Amino acid sequence: MPRKAPMKLRISAELKYSLEAPTDALVQVEAAATLQQTIVSERLDAGETTYLSRISSEDSIGTRVWLSCAESLSVRYESEVEIERPAVDLQSLNAEPVHRLPHEAVRYLMASRFCPSDEFQSFVAAEFSQVQGGACIAEMAEWIGSRFIYSPGASGPQTTALDTFVQRRGICRDFAHVLISLARAKAIPARMVSCYAPDVDPQDFHAVAEVWLDGGWHLVDPTDMAKPQETAVIGVGRDAADIAFLTTYGWATLQNQQVWVNRA
Amino acid sequence: MPRKAPMKLRISAELKYSLEAPTDALVQVEAAATLQQTIVSERLDAGETTYLSRISSEDSIGTRVWLSCAESLSVRYESEVEIERPAVDLQSLNAEPVHRLPHEAVRYLMASRFCPSDEFQSFVAAEFSQVQGGACIAEMAEWIGSRFIYSPGASGPQTTALDTFVQRRGICRDFAHVLISLARAKAIPARMVSCYAPDVDPQDFHAVAEVWLDGGWHLVDPTDMAKPQETAVIGVGRDAADIAFLTTYGWATLQNQQVWVNRA
Amino acid sequence: MPRKAPMKLRISAELKYSLEAPTDALVQVEAAATLQQTIVSERLDAGETTYLSRISSEDSIGTRVWLSCAESLSVRYESEVEIERPAVDLQSLNAEPVHRLPHEAVRYLMASRFCPSDEFQSFVAAEFSQVQGGACIAEMAEWIGSRFIYSPGASGPQTTALDTFVQRRGICRDFAHVLISLARAKAIPARMVSCYAPDVDPQDFHAVAEVWLDGGWHLVDPTDMAKPQETAVIGVGRDAADIAFLTTYGWATLQNQQVWVNRA
Amino acid sequence: MPRKAPMKLRISAELKYSLEAPTDALVQVEAAATLQQTIVSERLDAGETTYLSRISSEDSIGTRVWLSCAESLSVRYESEVEIERPAVDLQSLNAEPVHRLPHEAVRYLMASRFCPSDEFQSFVAAEFSQVQGGACIAEMAEWIGSRFIYSPGASGPQTTALDTFVQRRGICRDFAHVLISLARAKAIPARMVSCYAPDVDPQDFHAVAEVWLDGGWHLVDPTDMAKPQETAVIGVGRDAADIAFLTTYGWATLQNQQVWVNRA
Repeated sequence: MPRKAPMKLRISAELKYSLEAPTDALVQVEAAATLQQTIVSERLDAGETTYLSRISSEDSIGTRVWLSCAESLSVRYESEVEIERPAVDLQSLNAEPVHRLPHEAVRYLMASRFCPSDEFQSFVAAEFSQVQGGACIAEMAEWIGSRFIYSPGASGPQTTALDTFVQRRGICRDFAHVLISLARAKAIPARMVSCYAPDVDPQDFHAVAEVWLDGGWHLVDPTDMAKPQETAVIGVGRDAADIAFLTTYGWATLQNQQVWVNRA
Repeated sequence: MPRKAPMKLRISAELKYSLEAPTDALVQVEAAATLQQTIVSERLDAGETTYLSRISSEDSIGTRVWLSCAESLSVRYESEVEIERPAVDLQSLNAEPVHRLPHEAVRYLMASRFCPSDEFQSFVAAEFSQVQGGACIAEMAEWIGSRFIYSPGASGPQTTALDTFVQRRGICRDFAHVLISLARAKAIPARMVSCYAPDVDPQDFHAVAEVWLDGGWHLVDPTDMAKPQETAVIGVGRDAADIAFLTTYGWATLQNQQVWVNRA
Repeated sequence: MPRKAPMKLRISAELKYSLEAPTDALVQVEAAATLQQTIVSERLDAGETTYLSRISSEDSIGTRVWLSCAESLSVRYESEVEIERPAVDLQSLNAEPVHRLPHEAVRYLMASRFCPSDEFQSFVAAEFSQVQGGACIAEMAEWIGSRFIYSPGASGPQTTALDTFVQRRGICRDFAHVLISLARAKAIPARMVSCYAPDVDPQDFHAVAEVWLDGGWHLVDPTDMAKPQETAVIGVGRDAADIAFLTTYGWATLQNQQVWVNRA
Repeated sequence: MPRKAPMKLRISAELKYSLEAPTDALVQVEAAATLQQTIVSERLDAGETTYLSRISSEDSIGTRVWLSCAESLSVRYESEVEIERPAVDLQSLNAEPVHRLPHEAVRYLMASRFCPSDEFQSFVAAEFSQVQGGACIAEMAEWIGSRFIYSPGASGPQTTALDTFVQRRGICRDFAHVLISLARAKAIPARMVSCYAPDVDPQDFHAVAEVWLDGGWHLVDPTDMAKPQETAVIGVGRDAADIAFLTTYGWATLQNQQVWVNRA
């Protein structure tokens, strides 16, 4: 049987900020090298810096870069990534009994800054008790997708899954936060993934959820804009607090930020 | 110069819950074996279980135990622990420039469920800008200790550092949450530590903060009940969500819970 | 056609608190005299006080009593109330166009402490857009009643409708807060009512909602424990913040609190 | 002794919104006629409407206008107002014993949507226990003014006093919300006032606090931009939820909004 050709993505991202004073910044924009995605070529141009070092990132997926900049922060990233992540039928995946979960999954059962899953126990028990495992996750994603409105500007950096659950509006981060909260409340480990994908509209850094089923992690996008087999993962974490593409330790004023993702 | 004899603690803890149905539980009550504390003897009696396995815990400090129980959950833990954690002068410790922080510390800069440090930036910039590093942490701990009232019953399992900051009442977990939030807002990594200590009054599981200064972690207790050299660490994490001594996946009704910690 | 005999209730309530220092207290426990309920007999015994005065209450429904007490607060209230509130078919009532609402109703469209109705707009637009007026309120009450668990202890004095909406547990105050929030988000004025009713289980002060339809106020109890024709209204307000039966300005320790309501 | 000439203000305000569908709107932009301010001339031009009626407003101060509009909402208001509100020395005013407060003041002791004063009790007890009445209010206003940054864009329509208290940034509404919360926590009734004042920078609708001392209401502006003797009151309420200059019941898109206030 002929092997299917891998999907290849061409990715560019640009960040430009002016600074009032010398500032440290933590940047995470590079696609991660993993078993399911190969970095064919890449270039990170960090402009003028007084310091640059690379550190590992959560769960050893991808890396972050520390920068010190004097007057401005200017990062340009370009890469070609080959993705061989098989499409998986979510419906067919099983949840393990919770007592069989290993530490690497258990830590993603816990409530986090934007995913207070402890508050969603009753809701999930009431609305999602008849369905288990991957079928349950699929139903949760579909529940979000059909009831929530994708609405840039309706949420902010401090919006939690609880706010979004009530207000039913938000962007990719908010959709993912709700799905992660519901999954954890169902005792299915769930983490957040920053990524690039070609059909995100408007093009931007994207965020989706990843759930632990049948002993491994599986991408799920409740906005339905990113297929797993076309998603270039940047990094993972508990929620948006862990996967910011840029954190500055000092004031920085946005001048330009752009993302391009194309099928090669 | 003669080496000072290590502190030895005798620790017992007992948890008894009745269950309505077979239930899984994640238990973390055992003192961790680390460079600074030696487990001289220990015994964990988990009563009648249908399953028991041990998994590692956050940052590989200590372990958690998965239990499956049919009718009741009954855990009894006893140990002798020798502690050789040197007393450190917090005032003398320096904060590293944020861009020098390694991954293991960076992850504890991020906001978490009960420590929304992102909301405390302006407060910390206004009130703690003149003092740095360990001296700043000491001042923050003293600020909390002198203004907050230790008041069992004033807070609950969903109380965040933001609630406590305004209400100025709480227990060890709440005091630690505020200190951790303030430290992170100052760009000093901070995590939460579950522990045993002899002078906790009333005796119970205890929680303190740990901050990253001069390339290592240092215990700080804003309630001032636990000295670092008399603290037996159980586990660490981002906040109370990570270090629960017991999490049950099903209803469990408390029947008895007790902790004894004595100097040997 | 013979007129139906009015329902008569015998009501007693007792509050006993010890005080650390002389304390002022605002008490609102007396059934209100209104067109639909007649106070046949009543007695308020406020024990030893250094001051007692009566002031009117929100919307001139019922009264509050200011007390100053030295060592303890001890209030005993007894009354017989005849209720002639006709049973109304909620389904048949219409909402007025919002621009026709008078001031006395408009003020109950606004968000309040425990009813942040501004956050529920999208949810209500999505789930309750096909049904209007009294039929909509009936559907909202039934939606709450069938999904939420009446669970004393699950909520506290700072629990908002948003918390309850997510956690789906609470007591009468919480059920009423959610219904009020949903009604206001639908542009139907809604207020909170403290009351006595004979089938409240366990017997206690009770709280229900009241909605403005067809130019008047109509009681609705989402816990389904109090029928309008058997409800003795105490007072009204925006939410629980306005209708507390006791507010003390100083520390008071509960010694006894009991309510008895019986059909005469 | 010659009577001081009253301050005269010339006020204009303009609101323009486009509508997607016929929409009802509640508008409150007109300076109120009260004992302390005389409306010399006024004109409200509400553009093309299908309905217009005037209703009274909270505490019978000022009025609101109900409008129904088909395609756009366009309101232009112009007036000349003479203000004879004597400057008062806040420091000299006394708080009444709480048990002497009349109903009209008591209702402004209660927590509201954006002023959860119940959460500020401990803070106020700790920080403002040595000072009473007007001197306490002055100290609270000065505490806010010296620690909080006036920062348009830092807060949004759902920001509460609790958020602002922690984040220490906001606009006039947020400053007023914190002062009102602190005052109520000190058992001093406090309400919110929408107003016009000549030195608000940038010119806009303004909001300040009003506190009940010595048997009457007294304006206090924690942003220090509006002097009482130059403030033209529009309306009052519990917090921002009650004094919106515009509430639409349907989607409305801002096209223009401007305020001009000049000394005549």
